[in-house]
Amino acid sequence: YLSCGLCIPDPKLREALIKQEISMQTGGQVVLTDAEQRLDSVLFKMKQKEMMRPDFPPAMHFFKARELIKTSPIFSLLQKMPKGAALHVHDLSMVNAEWLVKNATYRPHCYMCYTDSNSIRFNFSSQAPEKQLNCSPWILLESLRAKLINTTDLDNSIMGNLTLFTNQDPETVYPSQEVVWDKFEKAFQAMWGLFTYAPVFRDYYYQGLTEFYTDNVMYLELRAVLPEIYELDGSCHCVAWTVKTYQEVTRQFKKDHPDFYGARIIFSHNRNASPSKMTEIVQKALKLQQDFPIFMAGFDLVGREDTGRPLWYFRDALSLPGDKGMTLPFFFHAGETNLEGTDVDQNLLDALLFNTSRIGHGFALLRHPLVKYKSRIEGVAVEVCPISNQVMKLVKDLRNHPAAALMSENHPVVISSDDPSMFGSSGLSYDFYEAFVGFGGLRANIGTLKELAKNSIRYSSLTPKQQKEAFALWQKKWDKFVSENAF
Amino acid sequence: YLSCGLCIPDPKLREALIKQEISMQTGGQVVLTDAEQRLDSVLFKMKQKEMMRPDFPPAMHFFKARELIKTSPIFSLLQKMPKGAALHVHDLSMVNAEWLVKNATYRPHCYMCYTDSNSIRFNFSSQAPEKQLNCSPWILLESLRAKLINTTDLDNSIMGNLTLFTNQDPETVYPSQEVVWDKFEKAFQAMWGLFTYAPVFRDYYYQGLTEFYTDNVMYLELRAVLPEIYELDGSCHCVAWTVKTYQEVTRQFKKDHPDFYGARIIFSHNRNASPSKMTEIVQKALKLQQDFPIFMAGFDLVGREDTGRPLWYFRDALSLPGDKGMTLPFFFHAGETNLEGTDVDQNLLDALLFNTSRIGHGFALLRHPLVKYKSRIEGVAVEVCPISNQVMKLVKDLRNHPAAALMSENHPVVISSDDPSMFGSSGLSYDFYEAFVGFGGLRANIGTLKELAKNSIRYSSLTPKQQKEAFALWQKKWDKFVSENAF
Ligand SMILES: [Zn+2]
Ligand SMILES: [Zn+2]
Repeated sequence: YLSCGLCIPDPKLREALIKQEISMQTGGQVVLTDAEQRLDSVLFKMKQKEMMRPDFPPAMHFFKARELIKTSPIFSLLQKMPKGAALHVHDLSMVNAEWLVKNATYRPHCYMCYTDSNSIRFNFSSQAPEKQLNCSPWILLESLRAKLINTTDLDNSIMGNLTLFTNQDPETVYPSQEVVWDKFEKAFQAMWGLFTYAPVFRDYYYQGLTEFYTDNVMYLELRAVLPEIYELDGSCHCVAWTVKTYQEVTRQFKKDHPDFYGARIIFSHNRNASPSKMTEIVQKALKLQQDFPIFMAGFDLVGREDTGRPLWYFRDALSLPGDKGMTLPFFFHAGETNLEGTDVDQNLLDALLFNTSRIGHGFALLRHPLVKYKSRIEGVAVEVCPISNQVMKLVKDLRNHPAAALMSENHPVVISSDDPSMFGSSGLSYDFYEAFVGFGGLRANIGTLKELAKNSIRYSSLTPKQQKEAFALWQKKWDKFVSENAF
Repeated sequence: YLSCGLCIPDPKLREALIKQEISMQTGGQVVLTDAEQRLDSVLFKMKQKEMMRPDFPPAMHFFKARELIKTSPIFSLLQKMPKGAALHVHDLSMVNAEWLVKNATYRPHCYMCYTDSNSIRFNFSSQAPEKQLNCSPWILLESLRAKLINTTDLDNSIMGNLTLFTNQDPETVYPSQEVVWDKFEKAFQAMWGLFTYAPVFRDYYYQGLTEFYTDNVMYLELRAVLPEIYELDGSCHCVAWTVKTYQEVTRQFKKDHPDFYGARIIFSHNRNASPSKMTEIVQKALKLQQDFPIFMAGFDLVGREDTGRPLWYFRDALSLPGDKGMTLPFFFHAGETNLEGTDVDQNLLDALLFNTSRIGHGFALLRHPLVKYKSRIEGVAVEVCPISNQVMKLVKDLRNHPAAALMSENHPVVISSDDPSMFGSSGLSYDFYEAFVGFGGLRANIGTLKELAKNSIRYSSLTPKQQKEAFALWQKKWDKFVSENAF
């Protein structure tokens, strides 16, 4: 050992190193205006208070933390903040479950039955539909409700089937990933008959856009399974109709809300298909991409990775667009797993090898230094969905979420909400709260928020020209937000 | 978008990338002998089975996982494996609590009392000691036990005061970091009167060395608070005596076990001291370092970081050795926190600025990319203690421990056990299990284990000449281990 020479480390050097490290984080290079700096001071003081709470929300399960977050002044600022785009949201989980119960199930001709596996099914039909296997007879909700003095219990029990959210202890209700995924899939099945009924489908999507718009989100890229949609008489619309309807409703919504930028669709199919089925699906995706080149953004595989088939299993189907010299941008879910080193854990690498445009979740990315490096230099952003990863039991205390590390070194990330209605959240603000307070700690600042919002446009599938428009629209909203909230 | 050209990504390129990523992990560059390769195949098969368990031990709290780990064939291999050195272990927590109860408290003249805050105190004394404030009168255990038909309940209740381990649900017993740290500190206070009694002190340390030696650990660097040690007549020995006794017992143990390499002491003081007290302590440390240059390894601050004073607060005291042109190697605990961005969270940077030789825990390192980079190029290893971080509630599922990421990129780490007796573990094997199975997943292999063992010698405080000796001794043990377990 040498004697140290300068003894106390130079406080100026120390200060410089601290600043250098902070400058490495997401938004660390953003030059702030005077007003932004004033807003940053406000935020910093709020954050200091928040971090001293004994019940620190990001350390708690979201189901318990939600009420605390609602009262947080940081959260109300984040709600007002123009957050740019939501790039990872699923079609069947945009709208709060209460709307489904209070609006959709109160429409006429709504039949419901109970399944033997403790779930429910819906069916809108002009006549009583035929009893299904392993189900109770269909009940017309209108008649049932007419007989009840009070429909609260019925409505609550329906709602409980359409969301994972619970007021009971979430650790007890969902002791394992298996249990939570089972309930998750059951809730989608329960929703199916509501969601795929043409009048509800249209209104659901409009309501979904409304919820995101109200939360100051200006653009969406929606993972959509694009089901066939049915009418009261039992007739069905094909998938092209579904896309067209999405497009029409989006146009209508833009017309009603001129400062909303729009939406695009990422066609998504379950990863449990057989290879031949997947070939069909990719062909269908190519067809849609050709027919709706502006509205369709690309293709993805969805469903639980741990029990599903890995991307490499579908390599033939996924190389079809290339074989045909056609374009089908991929937006793969990958690395939503803790099964380090298994076949499923190769999805991250394979997503990159198939030139994915973004990575959905990428929860395992920190354990893949090569993929991390490649995705960074190739500008493949990770769509981080904090609340989803917590509810689906990948991580308990969100301060340990890998995105905390990714954001500390400005890895390309966007924040999204995956399935807000399943998790009892809405829009993007709750997930922004977890990212800003939980991942960012005391260090994340107004520059971080600004950069996250900008990332959501930068890493969207919009063309450079569209991005320029979207940035201009966002900047206007941002300046207004800052001037209204900086004192 | 370009059409992809090669369509299915080249499987050979894919294979090469997977191998390249694996080669980046801890031990990824180790060239294996034939026998090591055979052992690796055995391990891989065991790991595959282990990872398919629905009750995957690294995902569970160690208190619940311990019995599962005990029956794991991987664990029994790890027990036999020569693990090198334990570089992060505390003096008062080397020996299982049962030994303390069954051996220490059964010695004559052992008095015990109950404190008002639900803890216990011990005192060996030739006469009944005077009643202490806020405590029950002293009870001579020998007399009390003589009156009992069955001493099991008493012994269990004593044991419960000396360890955090419990068979009850750990989440219920320890709902927060506050509660678990409170119990942790109480248990040390309860042990104090046992540990600091000269005859127990000697035997405790000898027993501690035995437990690590039995677990195939060949060298220790012990964080020691170096208390004054008392005798039955109430007389006291000074701190130099304590060091001398450690040295003597170590020598005796080496004599009794010639294949044990030895131990060194890192003098450790609580981080709650006042600045002037800390100056005194550092001066004491310098004195000890001068008087026992071979046996003393250096200095550290201990106690909970979140509620204690940050390193920078003690900058004057810590620069004293440099001011005097003297040598006092530092081995700072740093980054054992989730309070990102706070003053305490600067300990990692400050530890480096004070030229720490290693970092204790470094749990927050991933959120400090600059410190991470500097520590890597400066060869400052992180002492990773998986079970400790889990029990002290920094992380629940050990697959999310930051060291999983650090090991995936061969950041310099050593595995240690911190306070094994507090956590109901022993030696290093349990922590090696968590690191190998939990952090490493299916990818970590025999090369990883070999490198972790070698790291423990490489990053020890031993001189280059001593390291050469230690490596030779370890290699002999390793070759024997491999040849005995590779089929
Ligand atoms: Zn998703
Ligand atoms: Zn420690």
